[in-house]
Amino acid sequence: MIRRADQALAQALPSEQLPPEPLHRAMRYAVLGGGKRLRPLLVYAAGAALGEHGPALDPPACAVELIHAYSLVHDDLPAMDDDALRRGRPTCHIVFGEAMAILAGDALQALAFELLANAPIHTNSLDMLRVLGRACGAEGMAGGQALDLAAVGRKLELHELEHMHACKTGALIRASVRLGALAAGADATTLDALERYAHAVGLAFQVRDDILDVEGESAVIGKTAGKDAAADKPTFPSIIGLGASRARLDELICDALVAIEPLGDRAALLAELARYAAARHH
Amino acid sequence: MIRRADQALAQALPSEQLPPEPLHRAMRYAVLGGGKRLRPLLVYAAGAALGEHGPALDPPACAVELIHAYSLVHDDLPAMDDDALRRGRPTCHIVFGEAMAILAGDALQALAFELLANAPIHTNSLDMLRVLGRACGAEGMAGGQALDLAAVGRKLELHELEHMHACKTGALIRASVRLGALAAGADATTLDALERYAHAVGLAFQVRDDILDVEGESAVIGKTAGKDAAADKPTFPSIIGLGASRARLDELICDALVAIEPLGDRAALLAELARYAAARHH
Repeated sequence: MIRRADQALAQALPSEQLPPEPLHRAMRYAVLGGGKRLRPLLVYAAGAALGEHGPALDPPACAVELIHAYSLVHDDLPAMDDDALRRGRPTCHIVFGEAMAILAGDALQALAFELLANAPIHTNSLDMLRVLGRACGAEGMAGGQALDLAAVGRKLELHELEHMHACKTGALIRASVRLGALAAGADATTLDALERYAHAVGLAFQVRDDILDVEGESAVIGKTAGKDAAADKPTFPSIIGLGASRARLDELICDALVAIEPLGDRAALLAELARYAAARHH
Repeated sequence: MIRRADQALAQALPSEQLPPEPLHRAMRYAVLGGGKRLRPLLVYAAGAALGEHGPALDPPACAVELIHAYSLVHDDLPAMDDDALRRGRPTCHIVFGEAMAILAGDALQALAFELLANAPIHTNSLDMLRVLGRACGAEGMAGGQALDLAAVGRKLELHELEHMHACKTGALIRASVRLGALAAGADATTLDALERYAHAVGLAFQVRDDILDVEGESAVIGKTAGKDAAADKPTFPSIIGLGASRARLDELICDALVAIEPLGDRAALLAELARYAAARHH
């Protein structure tokens, strides 16, 4: 299923043979350099939980990954996190220069919306575009990044940290699950259950990320370890300690699994992704 | 009608009273600091040419201006044009810092799509989202900016310069006219006529811009004059001379006016905007 996402993305991205080649190369570099594909997998898994496995899931799966990739490109810029390494490779601006990295990120965001708007028409098409728009903007991912910027060097309360992550990474993770469900024609009850699942998984993913930053090695996690502490960024371990962070992680995974229980066996992949979010090593 | 656009934008943008306040402030600063509102006016004018004057035009009018504003914020960044002055005021990154300016631009792009997706449902809603997506991305505005980056210090042929501008600024101007027409339920023949109009106006706007950069004073044009030449950017005057640039401008305005002749009196505002694009002093 990672392969399905990779193939759909490779097809959705503009060709390196067509001008402007440097922009297309930077866009493809930013998206196709590996990555866990958690968000597309959540789209596929949410669709599968509702019996949908078909090509209707590919446009939303690509759209959320394009948004994720653009956010990483902009996040890594010198004016933001100033990261030179991502997924074990030089970051986009190191390879293509800052100006091209900014443009590649901008074009990836536009492509995500274009792709969703160009998907075969579906009763939920406009709903899906609304969900994506909201997840990316000032109330979602971009807003969360602004909260993150404001948090550097400040001492956050736990609820502030959770709110920041619920926006910064959670909004797009929740949107991924919702888009898969909408593409599968989910009813309101199922959308509610999946929303609870996605909220828990999104937060779990971030708690695990913070734990890995304390425990991990750069070579394994594919980016510079200990970076959060060095940058004086608030994290779960720095606020509640490593032990309590691990306990919170277990609790969140339970919440996620309970939320999807009513969906039965078809939610097996969703369950697997929740467990993966908690146990991943990079 | 500029006021109508300003009011619609002020309402569409997130409040400075709500968190994350710095992001919302940066977004509002970038959009509400004046500006010619050419793109919203083109939406209203194209709608009016088809007898539509109602609130259906406000979401597309705001969407194109939000995209335009975001592109200026990113364009002005140190890694791009490195401009400290825009519309006679300090640029967004000067006031809010580079990181916040990058995020504000990103959030403005998302808001444009969200706004269009949230507009009252219309038979052409998905078409409108497709038009906007295409205009912003690698085949449109972002692609044109990449061509522009690649052109610095190079000697371009006239057709290369025109292609670059047709993407960089033309794509969004054409989209503005098309969105207004789609919101008014235009047929294919009218869309074709308006496409020819918009192509000519978009290019005329840029030719005038290049002429102003040679002739203008910073205080009047609201940004640093002579900047293009100093940055060794190819311009119409630098390739074909000032006289031929003026002649090309006249020709383009004629093309635009001829294209909308079949629409009669209702296209008066479109005609006025074409003349303005050619004669403006800032």
